[in-house]
Amino acid sequence: LVLDIWFTEKHEDKQGITLKVKKTLYSGVSEFQKIDVIDTEAFGRMLLLDGLVMTTEKDEFYYHEMISHIPLLTHLNPERVLIIGGGDGGTIREVLRHPSVKEIVLCEIDEAVIDVSRDYLPSIACCLDDPKVDIHIEDAVEYIKGQKNAFDAVLIDSTDPLGPGVGLFTEEFYTNVKESLRENGVMAAQTESPVACQKEFKLINALLNKVFSVVKPYFAPVPTYPGGNWSWTFCSQGLQPEIRNEALAIELEKTSKYFNRDIYKAVFAVPNYVKDLMALPKAVK
Amino acid sequence: LVLDIWFTEKHEDKQGITLKVKKTLYSGVSEFQKIDVIDTEAFGRMLLLDGLVMTTEKDEFYYHEMISHIPLLTHLNPERVLIIGGGDGGTIREVLRHPSVKEIVLCEIDEAVIDVSRDYLPSIACCLDDPKVDIHIEDAVEYIKGQKNAFDAVLIDSTDPLGPGVGLFTEEFYTNVKESLRENGVMAAQTESPVACQKEFKLINALLNKVFSVVKPYFAPVPTYPGGNWSWTFCSQGLQPEIRNEALAIELEKTSKYFNRDIYKAVFAVPNYVKDLMALPKAVK
Repeated sequence: LVLDIWFTEKHEDKQGITLKVKKTLYSGVSEFQKIDVIDTEAFGRMLLLDGLVMTTEKDEFYYHEMISHIPLLTHLNPERVLIIGGGDGGTIREVLRHPSVKEIVLCEIDEAVIDVSRDYLPSIACCLDDPKVDIHIEDAVEYIKGQKNAFDAVLIDSTDPLGPGVGLFTEEFYTNVKESLRENGVMAAQTESPVACQKEFKLINALLNKVFSVVKPYFAPVPTYPGGNWSWTFCSQGLQPEIRNEALAIELEKTSKYFNRDIYKAVFAVPNYVKDLMALPKAVK
Repeated sequence: LVLDIWFTEKHEDKQGITLKVKKTLYSGVSEFQKIDVIDTEAFGRMLLLDGLVMTTEKDEFYYHEMISHIPLLTHLNPERVLIIGGGDGGTIREVLRHPSVKEIVLCEIDEAVIDVSRDYLPSIACCLDDPKVDIHIEDAVEYIKGQKNAFDAVLIDSTDPLGPGVGLFTEEFYTNVKESLRENGVMAAQTESPVACQKEFKLINALLNKVFSVVKPYFAPVPTYPGGNWSWTFCSQGLQPEIRNEALAIELEKTSKYFNRDIYKAVFAVPNYVKDLMALPKAVK
């Protein structure tokens, strides 16, 4: 007899996702949070932090392709990239597909996330030991203060604005990120669900607009996240989001699961109700 | 004490959505199916057929805007429109926003769906009694056989390929739909989730390609459907999907919740993994 076990993540005690569980592979408590890995029927292995879905083997590609290729393809020659959070390694894996990149700094507060990912999520954590990767176990809120004119791209691959991630959603932090960028540097951050986290989306968007001159949210599915859909935001001090390295985009398109050049353009279309959240007019001729 | 009651829709016994229930408003069994309306915390009132979510007050706009405006805006002057299924009335409401439309035929097999929607979903069913609407309570599989050269657009707003809806997913049915179209006529159908119903998506896509010369799937969120994301497919005998009535598109954009002209283009971007399902190459220069 196999027990009928289901994991349920509830969002604001109103809605949730439920997934049939094959097996719990890991459960532990780090210095910062509870960490679990469970194997699910629908999405394969899944990493949970404080009980919230962070990534799964089967749908991680949406998130990691979106946070990496969208900002990096706008830059003609990104050499030095900072990833904030991202201890599972998925963003590192995608950034390494950009041949101009010489060094990736991963600033992750919780070493246990890296260790658990190495042990249980090999298809995501595969590139954590790449020689181009320099891992800092440190709170990014502190780390970023010392970085000036240091990175071509900063990718904020954080948890939600609660628990250890809360300091990554402030004007001060975004200002320090901006100052850590080199000339023509670009930033992308996960910016919550436009469906299920509208209050957070609106707040983050307003903060980013105080700091950066170009602020462009973009949208894609993440089936295991609240609302089944997510947003990221591209920011810069002038560079608009468009593919500047067409040859590389074609290469990435050949082997990506979600990304292609049509998708690049499509993800920047802002749904009408999101224009309301951003206080933008709905129809401009 | 308020009971903590949750409705859960499970898909293939692997994954599901769960929603906190305020109250069950209606439960009945028609000649064809079980019909329920429940009021939920997250999505307002929700219509269920045979226990599956059909539509909700808060996220119906994605579905109804997509199945209506995308095909109708490709046609310069749609006058006569057939809606197959769609007893809740949401598609009628959106089609009526196209001023060229003189007559809408709704062919719904189950009158009880219409009656329940009128009683419990007024914001969706609001236009069922519009003088332009002609309601046929009949199996569309039979109805369509007698219609030749009769419609400028056919919108297949059906349930899933099981139960009373199964006959709406066959080559014979699609061929009859094609023959019911006037010159330059267009068709759009709901074609299941590219995330959670890949087998069905692939099968329907193959069938449509046997019948129509232009077959273009398009994609948008529907948070309460399996996988949180859905597909529809635009079909014609030559007309490509593009906005031909820009002035009307601007009007619709002013008051739509999801649709705007950028979204129109964006929804046709095919994710790379869907290209696999459609047997399309991934990178074409």
